Amino acid sequence: MHNDHANERITNMLAQIEEIQPDLTALRRDFHHYPETGWLEMRTSAVIAKRLTELGYRVLTGRDVCQEGARLGVPAQEELEAHAQRALEQGAPQAYLTQDMREGYTGVIGILECGEGPTLAMRFDIDALGMCECEAQSHRPRAEGFASENPGMMHACGHDGHAAIGLGIAQILMAHREELHGTVKLLFQPGEEGARGAGAMVAKGHLDDVDVFIGSHIAPTESLDDGDVTAGTWGSLATVKYDVTFLGEAAHAGGYPEKGHNALLAAASAVLALHAIPRHSGGQSRVNVGTLHAGTGRNVVPDRATMQLEVRGETTEINTFMEESALAACRGAAMMQGCTLETTVMGRAEGQHSDLALIERIGDVVRRDLPHLRLSSEQNARNWGSEDISLMMNRVQAHGGLATYMRVMTPVAGAQHTVTFDFDEAVLGRSVAVFCAVALDILGA
Amino acid sequence: MHNDHANERITNMLAQIEEIQPDLTALRRDFHHYPETGWLEMRTSAVIAKRLTELGYRVLTGRDVCQEGARLGVPAQEELEAHAQRALEQGAPQAYLTQDMREGYTGVIGILECGEGPTLAMRFDIDALGMCECEAQSHRPRAEGFASENPGMMHACGHDGHAAIGLGIAQILMAHREELHGTVKLLFQPGEEGARGAGAMVAKGHLDDVDVFIGSHIAPTESLDDGDVTAGTWGSLATVKYDVTFLGEAAHAGGYPEKGHNALLAAASAVLALHAIPRHSGGQSRVNVGTLHAGTGRNVVPDRATMQLEVRGETTEINTFMEESALAACRGAAMMQGCTLETTVMGRAEGQHSDLALIERIGDVVRRDLPHLRLSSEQNARNWGSEDISLMMNRVQAHGGLATYMRVMTPVAGAQHTVTFDFDEAVLGRSVAVFCAVALDILGA
Amino acid sequence: MHNDHANERITNMLAQIEEIQPDLTALRRDFHHYPETGWLEMRTSAVIAKRLTELGYRVLTGRDVCQEGARLGVPAQEELEAHAQRALEQGAPQAYLTQDMREGYTGVIGILECGEGPTLAMRFDIDALGMCECEAQSHRPRAEGFASENPGMMHACGHDGHAAIGLGIAQILMAHREELHGTVKLLFQPGEEGARGAGAMVAKGHLDDVDVFIGSHIAPTESLDDGDVTAGTWGSLATVKYDVTFLGEAAHAGGYPEKGHNALLAAASAVLALHAIPRHSGGQSRVNVGTLHAGTGRNVVPDRATMQLEVRGETTEINTFMEESALAACRGAAMMQGCTLETTVMGRAEGQHSDLALIERIGDVVRRDLPHLRLSSEQNARNWGSEDISLMMNRVQAHGGLATYMRVMTPVAGAQHTVTFDFDEAVLGRSVAVFCAVALDILGA
Amino acid sequence: MHNDHANERITNMLAQIEEIQPDLTALRRDFHHYPETGWLEMRTSAVIAKRLTELGYRVLTGRDVCQEGARLGVPAQEELEAHAQRALEQGAPQAYLTQDMREGYTGVIGILECGEGPTLAMRFDIDALGMCECEAQSHRPRAEGFASENPGMMHACGHDGHAAIGLGIAQILMAHREELHGTVKLLFQPGEEGARGAGAMVAKGHLDDVDVFIGSHIAPTESLDDGDVTAGTWGSLATVKYDVTFLGEAAHAGGYPEKGHNALLAAASAVLALHAIPRHSGGQSRVNVGTLHAGTGRNVVPDRATMQLEVRGETTEINTFMEESALAACRGAAMMQGCTLETTVMGRAEGQHSDLALIERIGDVVRRDLPHLRLSSEQNARNWGSEDISLMMNRVQAHGGLATYMRVMTPVAGAQHTVTFDFDEAVLGRSVAVFCAVALDILGA
Repeated sequence: MHNDHANERITNMLAQIEEIQPDLTALRRDFHHYPETGWLEMRTSAVIAKRLTELGYRVLTGRDVCQEGARLGVPAQEELEAHAQRALEQGAPQAYLTQDMREGYTGVIGILECGEGPTLAMRFDIDALGMCECEAQSHRPRAEGFASENPGMMHACGHDGHAAIGLGIAQILMAHREELHGTVKLLFQPGEEGARGAGAMVAKGHLDDVDVFIGSHIAPTESLDDGDVTAGTWGSLATVKYDVTFLGEAAHAGGYPEKGHNALLAAASAVLALHAIPRHSGGQSRVNVGTLHAGTGRNVVPDRATMQLEVRGETTEINTFMEESALAACRGAAMMQGCTLETTVMGRAEGQHSDLALIERIGDVVRRDLPHLRLSSEQNARNWGSEDISLMMNRVQAHGGLATYMRVMTPVAGAQHTVTFDFDEAVLGRSVAVFCAVALDILGA
Repeated sequence: MHNDHANERITNMLAQIEEIQPDLTALRRDFHHYPETGWLEMRTSAVIAKRLTELGYRVLTGRDVCQEGARLGVPAQEELEAHAQRALEQGAPQAYLTQDMREGYTGVIGILECGEGPTLAMRFDIDALGMCECEAQSHRPRAEGFASENPGMMHACGHDGHAAIGLGIAQILMAHREELHGTVKLLFQPGEEGARGAGAMVAKGHLDDVDVFIGSHIAPTESLDDGDVTAGTWGSLATVKYDVTFLGEAAHAGGYPEKGHNALLAAASAVLALHAIPRHSGGQSRVNVGTLHAGTGRNVVPDRATMQLEVRGETTEINTFMEESALAACRGAAMMQGCTLETTVMGRAEGQHSDLALIERIGDVVRRDLPHLRLSSEQNARNWGSEDISLMMNRVQAHGGLATYMRVMTPVAGAQHTVTFDFDEAVLGRSVAVFCAVALDILGA
Repeated sequence: MHNDHANERITNMLAQIEEIQPDLTALRRDFHHYPETGWLEMRTSAVIAKRLTELGYRVLTGRDVCQEGARLGVPAQEELEAHAQRALEQGAPQAYLTQDMREGYTGVIGILECGEGPTLAMRFDIDALGMCECEAQSHRPRAEGFASENPGMMHACGHDGHAAIGLGIAQILMAHREELHGTVKLLFQPGEEGARGAGAMVAKGHLDDVDVFIGSHIAPTESLDDGDVTAGTWGSLATVKYDVTFLGEAAHAGGYPEKGHNALLAAASAVLALHAIPRHSGGQSRVNVGTLHAGTGRNVVPDRATMQLEVRGETTEINTFMEESALAACRGAAMMQGCTLETTVMGRAEGQHSDLALIERIGDVVRRDLPHLRLSSEQNARNWGSEDISLMMNRVQAHGGLATYMRVMTPVAGAQHTVTFDFDEAVLGRSVAVFCAVALDILGA
Repeated sequence: MHNDHANERITNMLAQIEEIQPDLTALRRDFHHYPETGWLEMRTSAVIAKRLTELGYRVLTGRDVCQEGARLGVPAQEELEAHAQRALEQGAPQAYLTQDMREGYTGVIGILECGEGPTLAMRFDIDALGMCECEAQSHRPRAEGFASENPGMMHACGHDGHAAIGLGIAQILMAHREELHGTVKLLFQPGEEGARGAGAMVAKGHLDDVDVFIGSHIAPTESLDDGDVTAGTWGSLATVKYDVTFLGEAAHAGGYPEKGHNALLAAASAVLALHAIPRHSGGQSRVNVGTLHAGTGRNVVPDRATMQLEVRGETTEINTFMEESALAACRGAAMMQGCTLETTVMGRAEGQHSDLALIERIGDVVRRDLPHLRLSSEQNARNWGSEDISLMMNRVQAHGGLATYMRVMTPVAGAQHTVTFDFDEAVLGRSVAVFCAVALDILGA
């Protein structure tokens, strides 16, 4: 099945990728310059939609990408409006900045139909983190003029690179469309941080017809001795994130303390009960109340306490146990103080596993087609933290498809999620190569 | 209205009381010798019923005294049966130890009807405390052979004296029946400790037709310089006592902690929330979780936690606030851990106030008829703790009657509720004199 | 002792007060227009210092008023500097706005020495509250153009009036200086709100030589039927206010929760233990954790939790019990989680009592010299809340002097400490009259 | 090295074991009939010491077996004395029931020295559980007359069998002494339940010179299809068990609550903080407060609260983290309430691992010498719970020796630690065979 013709195609493709490396770098730096946090990726989405359209893809945006009512942790209306204005000022292509996007329906899907054949979906997350970028000149994005223009927002996780990689893939695959049999779906996902966006794309049905699903993350490595690519990952924790508010009744703490319903007391009881949820014999679990804000003044019984919490589990089942226990703890705590309770799901990810058959197939492709890249050890495939790509993988697998979540290794400056994060942009081309080689293998004749 | 005839009657009565002082002492020592805690006052009730019957009173016992379903904190069936057996062995007059009494319907009412006139009720509580009496020979009841025969039970609050006083009054008033116009009710109440018995007598309706209601307590004083009698008291706290049990689900703490529902965690949360009930600006409040017992073994998630708690309030309203807050705290705590909750009211007393008009009338009687006794200052009338006589007083007052709770002072050995408590038995005659002088005044021509 | 000459003096004085009523109103409105919170009363102090100087008083300001190191709850340096600039812009007399004042040493003392005789001190608190004034035109200060110019600051407690009253008294007493024998001290105190300022004036020794001490507060009444003046107050609670910070160790809540030291868990334990401090049988007590702020992000173990708390007690002893119990609770909570603890006293007031002899003397003066004013019932003298004037009163009384805290009644719009607070400015003249009549009585021949 | 001679020895040995199977059963039933819990194994130890002595072993007992001061969870003096009396009544050989044993220094060591060669130690735990045996006639030990004679004590974990196996091995190896080169140590350990005894034998130095160490446990299996023997185990949790007492100050909860130091409040805070110790990213951890008992009466501030707690960890490091966190939680909780704290270690086990080299060697022995036995899968080797044999294994390994903890499978009636536990006594002979074959292999020529 694999022959000289195939070899030639690959050689050809690798040359093309080398050619567009400067474009990839420029794209990544543009996204880095104008980072946008979850549901505010308006400029980002408009740039991507414009590019995909120009390349010839069928493009979905807005409410065609994310199901109404299924987005988690959407900012307030005023924040959306203010940012839409800024996006325009920062050069968002006006024709592509739709009303839906301005309402927080960000994210883009590019579809390339090449006749009969399987459907291959690839996912690229595009949102930034809510943090301020390093001010020091020793930080390369600062020195070279592409550091964040948006206070309190920074691409410190590499999603700027992911967006650029997705557009690079779009270009390469379009050039090879004649060699493909089936359908390519490029999913540019908003709101991955906090696990807020994948569910809305899943709810819209975009994963229901997918036969093969691939995602990847740029991954830090001190040197490249451990290899360049892992074809799958393991160990990610399922999670759910809640905002919880206890509402009581204020009262003057000196004059009439008995007239109050103390929301802070309720929250304090909840904090203790949450952390005291039993350990699970089935595997790792987690719980954290990351923030708590309560009260208005020293001498007033607090009538409001708001906390941001999350639970995790090594499996979806453990995570569900944690979630149910957490809600019971909060409900009981509210009842103790005669308070009411408001809970809002702010993010959700499930347990995930990469299919062994797909991991092995990708391994074969890398060894055969990309011999300059080395496959990493299983240890490198340990995926700390939680990722809502799990929702997409699980949906694909539920319908009988195969899914994997890869990592492409790169040296980094500063750790992920720190203000000095930056990476070697050579990883962009490497990533494009892996995705495209796999696409050619799966959709090739 | 008051004249020589009256003076003569009083002089006569005081002489009679002096005469029966040895009987009063003997009665008190008999009760002290065989103390019986709440709802176990079987021998005590039988002795009282026999005496009242022999004196010519109409006598109510058993279910005619306490309303079914209204007794609080009744011991288990086995304990009732075992004690009934012991009561017989300790000389309870068999003909008066009714089946009702053996089932824990203790308490006796003696009624003396003397034609037209007001109804005067007097209350005497008869139960002992659940504690062991001092073993030392320096303790007079031990030295003189009338210390408790019943392990874990002791008259350490003076109710042995109260019962004797009640019988003394019965004798004196019967002797003076020709001079009385109206009805005398002598209420011998079970289960005052823990505030368990008064409610059941009130529920039976015995206070509904009462015009004047008087109770008293033997009260410790270091010397008698502060006076001998207070015609009223103030400051008693309303209270309610609960037994609370959290029921969860056991699990092996090493093997499957997630399968448990931890009743001890629920109880611990409740303990903290209970003590954190807001202070009340309207006056003193109290809360105490006096005991907590939970769990079966070190390596088992506790499926059961039982606690004895009480709340108090300077007014019935404050106490109700405490009770409702406490129940909310327990219910919420149970919900937090997926436990169920059982609550049982074990005792209840209300706020109380002695009617000023009655206090003044009694003051007049003491000054006029009992000039050898001095009225105490208001400070001595401060009544620490809680008393379910409040339920009787409030019922009388609700129907337009007058009520007061007096104290008759006496030197004591050891404080009340301690193992060395004992008192100077001269207080028995003094108490009989006060009650009878007031009765003659109120029911006299 | 009291005679026609005296009567004439009083009549004369009352006429003068009526004459300056427009000035009092203008002064009060100027202070209301430029409210300044604790330790920022720079413009206010400069205006007062200028006026007292011009009237001929010996004037103390800055570090001569408040002891270094004894001020509580002083704002940060930047806030002091920014406000000093604003004070100048708002017309603070530059010559009187000293460097000390700019550093937050606000407060002024005016001294009038009139030869041999007792020392009479009067106290006027001058700070505003940290709240925004009502925007509605129905609010008189808004309609008449003297509403607050300083966002987040408002005279909603009447201290604008107190400052004006103090200056009115200064003028009247200076006019009557020939009739006085002894020393007058007018204490314009900063930082009464939060009980932050009195201690620093006491620490400087200004109360050590005082024989008679008088303070007063404008007090709301629905009508004036309850009287115009109370010569003393009772029932104020001693208090201490703390800012408490728990410092732990952050950690990624998903990756390495065991590496954290959870400051929020410590704070939650403390909140529960604080509210669970035992009730005190000696009288009312209070505790409140008014605000709690903890954590930096949902997925990070909180390394910092800050809370504002206060305790109170009906007596200084009860308050001390509460304070010590609260500190133990916080220390233990920190230890539980391996956190460190920072505690800062932000305010302190003691229990207080007005001397009966002084109350009676003032009552006599009012009845004799100010017959148009009626003395209020004792009920009106109930002083809810806490006041650091207690520190001054207690120091005076400790040295054998007499002290009282009066109330002068007035109709108000909106309750104290609400955004619509305003009062009938006739109370200014009434207050000046009471203070001056008392001063003439005490220091008069 | 292995030859016909060896084969003959094994065949010979297996025949001997078959011969003594009735003795093994009788011994096991005798131990089952007279079960003895930790540090009360007086009759058991005397029986073992007598048998070993008669077989010709050098025998250590009493303070020569367990280090003074190192035993954990020793019963009270009265309990020791009462049980010693009962042991005699139940036929303990009086000559072997030493004074040390009567003081709770139970456990026996039998030593067989066979010249030059390695030291092989084998461990047999001998204590019963604190529970009542099933009363039903369907329970074989009841039906056949060897159920527990000691109320509240039962061999429900198989240690009766372990003791019998140890004596069986003693007999077989003595018969083969001529074929051995080195030293055999048979360790009969007291107090394994609760992890109380191993540490005291380790502290005495008995493991310091051991080259190879083997222990085993009778292990339940539904059928024997999963194999008969596992040569090692994995997954056991390190643990430490504490008894913790909070000591405060009692006070009347109605009269003077402020005079108390509430030990129950301290305990409740500790319970919550204990369960809230962070999860550990390094593996499984556990915490349980299994029992809590506090307080003396409903209306008394509790001055004493006692709890039994345990923590566990997948590694000794995790367990140490749990232990240190638990102690900090208790110390802080005591401080919060002004209580003192008493903590007593009641048991301790460490993490353990069986040496792969030894597992493989034993596997070879079983395959070669005991072909009628099948080795189990690794899954069967999962060792739930905690075992203080870990302390012995770790000590041996620390000195460079090899250690393993095996399981010999058997059908059971009722699960371990339940009242109907019983097992097929054929496992006794199987176990003796495995130990002896390994001993011949290691100490054989």
